[in-house]
Amino acid sequence: MDIAHPYLMFLGDAPDQLAAKTAQGVAQWRPEWCVGQFRLPGCRADLGLTDMTMEEAAEAGVKTVIVGVANRGGRISTEWIDVLDRALQLGMDLASGLHKKLADVPMLKAAAEEHGRQLFDVRHPTEDFDVGSGVARSGKRLLAVGTDCSVGKMYATLALEAEMRRRGMKADFRATGQTGILIAGSGVSIDAVVADFISGAVEWLSPENEPDHWDLVEGQGSLFHASFAGVSMGLLHGAQADALVLCHEPTRSHMRGLPHYPLPDLKLCMARNLEAARLTNPQAAFVGIAVNTSGLSEGEGDDLLKRLSDEHGLPAVDPVRTGVEAIADRLQGI
Amino acid sequence: MDIAHPYLMFLGDAPDQLAAKTAQGVAQWRPEWCVGQFRLPGCRADLGLTDMTMEEAAEAGVKTVIVGVANRGGRISTEWIDVLDRALQLGMDLASGLHKKLADVPMLKAAAEEHGRQLFDVRHPTEDFDVGSGVARSGKRLLAVGTDCSVGKMYATLALEAEMRRRGMKADFRATGQTGILIAGSGVSIDAVVADFISGAVEWLSPENEPDHWDLVEGQGSLFHASFAGVSMGLLHGAQADALVLCHEPTRSHMRGLPHYPLPDLKLCMARNLEAARLTNPQAAFVGIAVNTSGLSEGEGDDLLKRLSDEHGLPAVDPVRTGVEAIADRLQGI
Repeated sequence: MDIAHPYLMFLGDAPDQLAAKTAQGVAQWRPEWCVGQFRLPGCRADLGLTDMTMEEAAEAGVKTVIVGVANRGGRISTEWIDVLDRALQLGMDLASGLHKKLADVPMLKAAAEEHGRQLFDVRHPTEDFDVGSGVARSGKRLLAVGTDCSVGKMYATLALEAEMRRRGMKADFRATGQTGILIAGSGVSIDAVVADFISGAVEWLSPENEPDHWDLVEGQGSLFHASFAGVSMGLLHGAQADALVLCHEPTRSHMRGLPHYPLPDLKLCMARNLEAARLTNPQAAFVGIAVNTSGLSEGEGDDLLKRLSDEHGLPAVDPVRTGVEAIADRLQGI
Repeated sequence: MDIAHPYLMFLGDAPDQLAAKTAQGVAQWRPEWCVGQFRLPGCRADLGLTDMTMEEAAEAGVKTVIVGVANRGGRISTEWIDVLDRALQLGMDLASGLHKKLADVPMLKAAAEEHGRQLFDVRHPTEDFDVGSGVARSGKRLLAVGTDCSVGKMYATLALEAEMRRRGMKADFRATGQTGILIAGSGVSIDAVVADFISGAVEWLSPENEPDHWDLVEGQGSLFHASFAGVSMGLLHGAQADALVLCHEPTRSHMRGLPHYPLPDLKLCMARNLEAARLTNPQAAFVGIAVNTSGLSEGEGDDLLKRLSDEHGLPAVDPVRTGVEAIADRLQGI
C-alpha cells in the first residue's frame, strides 16, 4: 500500500466537525499534501481548505481523494458514490478509513478497474504477513505504549517525527491505525490483522534499516486493556523497540469503553511494557512520558509533568503544550 | 458451528501416521464418535478403525466426514474431491482442519448447497465477534497456559474434562484450535480471529453458565513466545479464569520455531500469567502444573514432578503417565 499525494479531503455530508476527525488529523500533520476539500450540501465540517469540485482537484494535480469522514450509519451513501465514481473517472485514486469497504461497492470497484485506479481501504490489510520471527534487525525503533487506548500515541509519535526531522535525524512514522495510515501514506491497521500475525505484521511494517535510522511505531491499546491487550503485546514483540514512550491521559476515570476497570499504576504499566519489549530487544528502555494535559489547567499540567519526571527519572512532556524536544534530546543520545 | 457426530475419519492418501495427527487426536478423545475410517490407495496412516466406503458410512449413520489429515502440499487434491463430493451426495456434512478451505472448492461448495449439507472449515472462524467486554460472568473457568507452544495444553485440558466428568462434575472442554474443535464438535480457532476480537471471541466461547459448571478453555501459545504472545494475552483476558494450569515440556532447548529464544523461567512465567488473568478475574489462581515427561526416563520424570510440586506448592502431574487426579482434587475445592 502506497497512497499517492497530493490529497483532496472528501468530507461528504459530515454532520459535525468530529465526524471529520480522521480528515482533520491528516490535514493537521500533512498540510503540504492536502490541496483542498470536497463538501456535499449539508456538510458541517470544515478543514479550512479551498473547496474544490472533483474536476478542479484533478486539474490541481490531486492523486488521491481521501474519505476521512464517518457518515451517519457507517455506510457509503448513494450521494457519495456518484462523486467518488467521478473522481475515479478523472484519474484519481480513492483511500478510505471507513469500516465499510470502497471495494465492496460494485460501481466503485468496476470504475477503478475500468480506469486503472486504486481503492485503498486502509482499515483492511491486504498483505499476507508471516508470523513474527523475533530475529534482531538493524536500525533503531521507538514504540509508543499507553496506559489506555486513545491517550495520544499517534500524536506523540508524529510530533517526534517532526522534531527529529527538524534536527536532521532520519525518522519515519510507521502507522498502525487508519488515521495514521492516511497521514503516512502507508502502514498496517494492526488490530485488523489475523491474531497469529500481529507481531509478524509489525516486523513487516518496520523492517531492517540503516543503523542511525529511527522507525517511530504508532502504538495501539494498552497491555492493561481487557479488550485489546493482545494487540499491544504483539506490537511490543514485533517492534523490537530500542526506545519506549509512555502515553497517558490523567483525567480519565476508567479504561476507555470499560467503566468497571480503573487505569493501571504508571510504574507497573511501564515495568510490564519494558519487560515485554525486552523479550525481543534486551536494550529496550523508556525515553519519556507523553501526557495529554488538555483536561487540566496550565498550572496543574505543569505540576503533573514535573512530578512524573521526578518520579520516573524521565522527560515528561505534553506534545501539544510543551513539545517533545526533551524526548528527542534523549533519542539523539542512543 | 456445531459439528454433528458420529464421524467418519477421512485419511486420504496420508503419507505417514504423522500426517493424520489431527484425525488421531479425534479418535483418541472421542472414540465413541468415530465409527470408521476412509483411506485412498497409498494411504499409510491407520487409526485402527473399520475401513468404510462412503456408502457404508452413510448406511452406518455417519453425520460428518472429518478431513483430519495434512496432505502433500497442503492442497485438496482431485482424488479427494471426488470422494468428498460423494459424501455430500449421500447426505453427510464435511469438516476440515486444513488451511485450505473446503468452501473454496467450487465442486464441494455447489454440492453442499445442492444437497443442503454443511462445510465446516474449522480453522476459519465465521462468527462475528464483539470486542471483549471484561464484564464478570457466572460459572467457573479453567485455562491452560504454557511456557511454549505445543506443550500439551489440549491434552491436559481434555484429560481434566474426562476426570471431572468421571467424578460427576459439570465440565466442558472449550476448543481454541482445529484439532480441539473437531474433538469438541465446536469452538473457535482463536489464532485465526481478527486481532481486535481475541478476548471477545474467548468470552463468546465460554459464556456465563451455572455457578458449579466448569469451562475448560484450551490455551494457545505462550506469553513468552515472540510470535504468538498476543493470542495468549487475549486468551487470558477473555477467559476470566478462576483456575490456571501451567503446561511445560522440560526437554525443549528453545522456544518452538525460534532457535534463538530460550524457554522462560517457570516462576516468572507463572507470575505473569497470573497477573494478566487477574486483570479480568481477581480470584484467578494456579491449580497445577502439567508436564509432558515423555522425553525423560520414568525416574527422571518422577523426580522432576516432585521437585516442581515442592518448588511451587502445587500438584505437578504428567497427564499421560500419572493422570490429572491431583489437579481435579484441587478443582473440587474451588
